[in-house]
Amino acid sequence: MLFCKESLFTPGPTPVPDRVKQAMNQPMVAHRSEVFSNNLKQVATRLMPVFGSKEPVIVIAGSGTSALESAVCNVVHEGDHVVVVVTGVFGERFASICESYGVNVHRLDIEWGTACRPEQLETFLKGLEHPVKAVFATYCETSTSVLNPVKDLGAVVKRLTDALYIVDGVSCIGGVPVDMEEYQIDILVSGSQKALMLPPGLAFVAVNKRAKEEIKNGPKKRFYLDLNRYIQSYDEGTTTPFTPPVSLVYGANEVCQMIEEEGFGNVIKRHEILRDMTRAGVKALGLPLLVENDADASPTVTAVKPADGKANVIKKYLQEHFSMAIASGQKQLKGKIFRIGHMGYSTPFDVLNVLTALEMVVHELEGRDTFGIAVKKAEEVWKAHV
Amino acid sequence: MLFCKESLFTPGPTPVPDRVKQAMNQPMVAHRSEVFSNNLKQVATRLMPVFGSKEPVIVIAGSGTSALESAVCNVVHEGDHVVVVVTGVFGERFASICESYGVNVHRLDIEWGTACRPEQLETFLKGLEHPVKAVFATYCETSTSVLNPVKDLGAVVKRLTDALYIVDGVSCIGGVPVDMEEYQIDILVSGSQKALMLPPGLAFVAVNKRAKEEIKNGPKKRFYLDLNRYIQSYDEGTTTPFTPPVSLVYGANEVCQMIEEEGFGNVIKRHEILRDMTRAGVKALGLPLLVENDADASPTVTAVKPADGKANVIKKYLQEHFSMAIASGQKQLKGKIFRIGHMGYSTPFDVLNVLTALEMVVHELEGRDTFGIAVKKAEEVWKAHV
Repeated sequence: MLFCKESLFTPGPTPVPDRVKQAMNQPMVAHRSEVFSNNLKQVATRLMPVFGSKEPVIVIAGSGTSALESAVCNVVHEGDHVVVVVTGVFGERFASICESYGVNVHRLDIEWGTACRPEQLETFLKGLEHPVKAVFATYCETSTSVLNPVKDLGAVVKRLTDALYIVDGVSCIGGVPVDMEEYQIDILVSGSQKALMLPPGLAFVAVNKRAKEEIKNGPKKRFYLDLNRYIQSYDEGTTTPFTPPVSLVYGANEVCQMIEEEGFGNVIKRHEILRDMTRAGVKALGLPLLVENDADASPTVTAVKPADGKANVIKKYLQEHFSMAIASGQKQLKGKIFRIGHMGYSTPFDVLNVLTALEMVVHELEGRDTFGIAVKKAEEVWKAHV
Repeated sequence: MLFCKESLFTPGPTPVPDRVKQAMNQPMVAHRSEVFSNNLKQVATRLMPVFGSKEPVIVIAGSGTSALESAVCNVVHEGDHVVVVVTGVFGERFASICESYGVNVHRLDIEWGTACRPEQLETFLKGLEHPVKAVFATYCETSTSVLNPVKDLGAVVKRLTDALYIVDGVSCIGGVPVDMEEYQIDILVSGSQKALMLPPGLAFVAVNKRAKEEIKNGPKKRFYLDLNRYIQSYDEGTTTPFTPPVSLVYGANEVCQMIEEEGFGNVIKRHEILRDMTRAGVKALGLPLLVENDADASPTVTAVKPADGKANVIKKYLQEHFSMAIASGQKQLKGKIFRIGHMGYSTPFDVLNVLTALEMVVHELEGRDTFGIAVKKAEEVWKAHV
């Protein structure tokens, strides 16, 4: 076997650009200093267009799940009724968090690998007997690579209910369009280690004015994830209630710089092209996509479901022969799919590398003449877009 | 245009691995300390198999040219007669250095793009009226991507003369086999920024016992490049006569670690595969190779000579559209060729990236259906080798 560089194609963590690493390597500073406060202020403000938020984006030291939990425990009370749209593992995560807080969860379960249609949500909401406090949805369902139509779902939520509309954007924000006002999202959460090109460790929460009010009068049983504390700390001079990960905030500021330099519209377009290249290449290889409907496919991750069930064989082969890390399936999709991340610091050449690797492994496993065929289709997509 | 990561395919400098950068980021130490001395000792010793040297490899703070000059000014006296085999720009460099020192240079000029045949050297040496002090040859001629048969040339030198045999290995040592005893090389020089995966700044000189004696009795007019001082400093406790680039030495030690982990035999094989992949891909695209004879082609760099003279157009396009840096032609090859480096921290995926970029640019310039065709051939080569 030939030496290959370690390459990372998991749907989070994702590769961290050198310039972000360098920003994180700046000398440590006190988190109550003016210099850090200025840095945090920039991050909170510069992330606003990325989250489509009219308010500064809240930064929490935590994983994506901490952001999800904060979106539950700050606005939903014990005994409340909520709807959770479950299209995969991370929809289930929202449901589990709500259940932990003694909330009555009404699950709208969608077949894994398809997106939730607005009509499905409409029918579901109309069938409920209780008024709901909140509707939870997942923008990109990482476990299936589905991108839910969160804008259309939001329109349904707001037409039929007075509920808060809360969206998990962990594995796509930074790579997809979003406008909280237009999409009617009240709380939008994300994490640092996906399309935002950072190591794990930062959770982001964007809230609108209504959510802010709800948070102010939220349940008592919260402390670390009490978003009110974070909002107040911003108001009192852009700081954080608890010690923030200083280096990651420096890194986040550099990420904002990179996004601004490329132009956020171009970033979004790039992700769409990466998805289309990946899907075209995988199809050319005769490998079935889990998400059959192009309109349901996320620009940040692609799940592949080999007909012969060799998902884990392929994953292992790529790691062992090409030092290339992709992700396997989770829960009911365990062993049935593999997933390719193409978000954040990812470019056409990265997608072409993973397609080349797939050409090699399919040739090896099935003896088919696959060389160049996936790459060819992907190049055609690239060419057509630029 | 879509965002692409900066990628470096020049035949030096070449990409520096993260772990080498991290090694260079260790705390600065005094160069007269035991810790630095131990580090330098390791580098000097661990590089011996890479240079095929029986003596510790000398480390100079300088560019490759400083190593070339040291190989001249330590053993050749004013008025001496020497032969320089000139197959390109770096053969000319040796000749220019010799001329600066008032040495009588007998140039054996070989057509650029072909290697020097042993018979050509034999005829040339037989035609000389003066005994020669040294014969200079270039292992990999970076400017043309020719790999000269330095072993066979060495046999001719030693059969017909008493001359020292001095070889420039700057753009290949670390990626090609060499054994100074078997190849009958007396002095072999190289630089850090090519197959040795380091930033520029270190020059390496390997000398055998005979060369050591000659250096001891060498010309007076030398100071910084007086190899005797370096040899003595080694003997007196592995140090350097002048301040060494401490960080680069740390980096060099990590490079040795990487080469040992991969296995030097595997490193050599990898370079051969990278060359074969590159040549197969370029040929599939219908682009003429400057070095037509496969046996003359260097495993570290490939020169391409587009029939329509569009070398610089292609180079510019790759930089502007793909942030990909390749090299142009030098001197008489200026504007006629472009060069792709594939040495050091380079793997099949890197070669496939540059071939993809060439597929895209040829399609753009000529409208030909090139997508996938170079990649396909390169994958076939890769597959056949592993």
